[in-house]
Amino acid sequence: MSESVSSEVKITNSIDGVAGFSVAGVHAGLKKEGALDFAIIASDRPSVAAGVFTRNTVKAAPVLLTMQRAAEHGEDIRAIAINTKSANACTGEEGMANAEKMARLVAGQIGINAQQVMVMSTGVIGTQLPMAKIENGAQLAGKSLGNDWQAAATAIMTTDTRPKLASVTISTAQGEYTIAGISKGSGMIAPNMATMLGVVVTDAELSQPFAQQAVRTGADASFNRAIVDGDTSTNDMVVLMANGASGVSIDQMESADGQQFQAALNEVMMSLAKQVVRDGEGVSKFISLHINNAATAEDALQIGRTIANSPLVKTAFFGNDANWGRIMAAAGRSGAALDHHLAHLYFAVGEDSTDDALCLFANGQPTDYSEEEATRIIKHSDVTVILDCGMGDASCRLWTCDLSHEYVSINSDYRS
Amino acid sequence: MSESVSSEVKITNSIDGVAGFSVAGVHAGLKKEGALDFAIIASDRPSVAAGVFTRNTVKAAPVLLTMQRAAEHGEDIRAIAINTKSANACTGEEGMANAEKMARLVAGQIGINAQQVMVMSTGVIGTQLPMAKIENGAQLAGKSLGNDWQAAATAIMTTDTRPKLASVTISTAQGEYTIAGISKGSGMIAPNMATMLGVVVTDAELSQPFAQQAVRTGADASFNRAIVDGDTSTNDMVVLMANGASGVSIDQMESADGQQFQAALNEVMMSLAKQVVRDGEGVSKFISLHINNAATAEDALQIGRTIANSPLVKTAFFGNDANWGRIMAAAGRSGAALDHHLAHLYFAVGEDSTDDALCLFANGQPTDYSEEEATRIIKHSDVTVILDCGMGDASCRLWTCDLSHEYVSINSDYRS
Repeated sequence: MSESVSSEVKITNSIDGVAGFSVAGVHAGLKKEGALDFAIIASDRPSVAAGVFTRNTVKAAPVLLTMQRAAEHGEDIRAIAINTKSANACTGEEGMANAEKMARLVAGQIGINAQQVMVMSTGVIGTQLPMAKIENGAQLAGKSLGNDWQAAATAIMTTDTRPKLASVTISTAQGEYTIAGISKGSGMIAPNMATMLGVVVTDAELSQPFAQQAVRTGADASFNRAIVDGDTSTNDMVVLMANGASGVSIDQMESADGQQFQAALNEVMMSLAKQVVRDGEGVSKFISLHINNAATAEDALQIGRTIANSPLVKTAFFGNDANWGRIMAAAGRSGAALDHHLAHLYFAVGEDSTDDALCLFANGQPTDYSEEEATRIIKHSDVTVILDCGMGDASCRLWTCDLSHEYVSINSDYRS
Repeated sequence: MSESVSSEVKITNSIDGVAGFSVAGVHAGLKKEGALDFAIIASDRPSVAAGVFTRNTVKAAPVLLTMQRAAEHGEDIRAIAINTKSANACTGEEGMANAEKMARLVAGQIGINAQQVMVMSTGVIGTQLPMAKIENGAQLAGKSLGNDWQAAATAIMTTDTRPKLASVTISTAQGEYTIAGISKGSGMIAPNMATMLGVVVTDAELSQPFAQQAVRTGADASFNRAIVDGDTSTNDMVVLMANGASGVSIDQMESADGQQFQAALNEVMMSLAKQVVRDGEGVSKFISLHINNAATAEDALQIGRTIANSPLVKTAFFGNDANWGRIMAAAGRSGAALDHHLAHLYFAVGEDSTDDALCLFANGQPTDYSEEEATRIIKHSDVTVILDCGMGDASCRLWTCDLSHEYVSINSDYRS
């Protein structure tokens, strides 16, 4: 373990509260049987907001609207509203009008301007938002704003089996501030994109450029390293809201406070990203993937992503089969520079672990490892795979999972 | 249906014989219970041989040896030997020595030089070839050379459930010649590579440069358009052998005979490629994917490959769920130029069919199609998906399949 993040940061998977923020998660009628399906995260004062958004060219209406809000009103955001069940993607002009109406409905309930509301949607692509239910959700959520972050995190779930929360409180010379976030997975998770839905809030005061840089850096270190199935949604976005209610102001990325903020933000986002992978559709095994000593940083990521996206690698993990040849084959077809005669491949037990790592492949051929030992390692629910490329000094870490029967079951009847 | 290939070419999925060629498929002991596992395809005279080889940088020893044979002895090849169960990849110097020994053993049985023998291997990566069994296979196969192409095609199978054969006989002013091929799938099948193992032979006389161009062109039109799971093996190769035994000589690609040969070769290879997809691991549905009117040929392929590789698209097909939004989402994340407001998406029943195509998406939003009609189409075992990008005039066709429980089952315990 040698993350650059300082070890003093202690993340908890719950949220006690963040000064100036209130939240709600309600049942608008989008999901069946009373399940929570509509959330609002609101600030009692104008907030700086910055986001990273899907690079899919087919962007959902709420993505387009929220990008516009960030660009035009990025220092004056008051609320984010999120619905499930319908992605409002591939829905044309009617979809855009519905996204705008969703913002107006929420603004009306809270008594703010529609321009101060960002919107997010997740669910099936190609169906229009059921606006009567959205209106119902806005009314119910607007009336029940409080401190129930668990409800808000639950209300944004789709096929997730559990809500995802993370928070940390940081002490500075100016006083304390908190960073807290919620996110949802759990399919259509892929690298190099904003990926999934995430909302991270802080009561620190940030400038908009600082917030933008921080959320981009955080996403690159976290959500962009989390791979479930290689698909990237039309709706992915992660937004950071900073309202300054703590009285702690952070404005220089290069300052000690700035670096501490970025490190803490990275940890909160990494916690959320790992929670997303662990709760990925049908996941039975969490794989930490360490690509070391690649020729370049791009090569390291390319090798890691190709391994993490390989159905053959993922099904072997599901079957507890230490079929490491598939990992080398995936590395070889990644397009990155690789001479497999220089590579070493190891398995270890645990998350981001190198403890008692077993070397399976070296000098272009299998080592004399024990198959029983390899199988013993891979049977754990947390396994770290370490590929030392021997090509240079660039490294990266990714987090991924196996591919199971359950993934196929979930996604073969998702709309029913 | 508007393939440029001439309609006079009639492919059959069996091989009656090809002048000057003899084959064998035997049980060397690599597989259990007497299953055929070792094959030889031999010519009674020196043949021109040319191939396309995996672009995976982790190339198996037999790939490296056969590439060398093609480069140095490409007008003097007499035989190709193929074993299953062990890929002889990631096996270092010992693996290379074993590949050379396999060629020597086969040469000794047939009474030719080792340099005249190409070798192919398929199976688990990272285990050394069991040379006693390989020697047994060479002896048995050498003694039983004959005309049993079915046995040879069966002997190269791994998780394939049926052998794959295709042949055609062409009449020319010089007389008749035959093109015949066998191949194996059925996982680790991906685009833009030589993909899988294939041997195509002809009794036409070709120059080595002609054969090289023809096999590359044929592979691009066939195996490189066949996508099962997006993984590309360390061992993929397709080799064309031409021995001239028919007395028909074809030396100009631009001549009518040359174009007819290429068209016929493409059809044989397309038949083999489609057979590979249809027999892909756990496949229950064959999808013809037509990307029309993309901005460039590269864009068309990129869009098609991203759709064909999407686990979410593939699982929806498995579940008979007409969840077309996943297709648009995959197209959008492909990296190719795409404005989804200009796109039209259709489903039709059948292989490479546009009959009664149902339009699901147009003008940036769903059409008023009937969900029942969409479901009726997608329940067929043969479905064509047509994406008209509206961006330009480049088009391509690919063939792919669904992702099923059975795929996961097969690949989670492949080595056992």
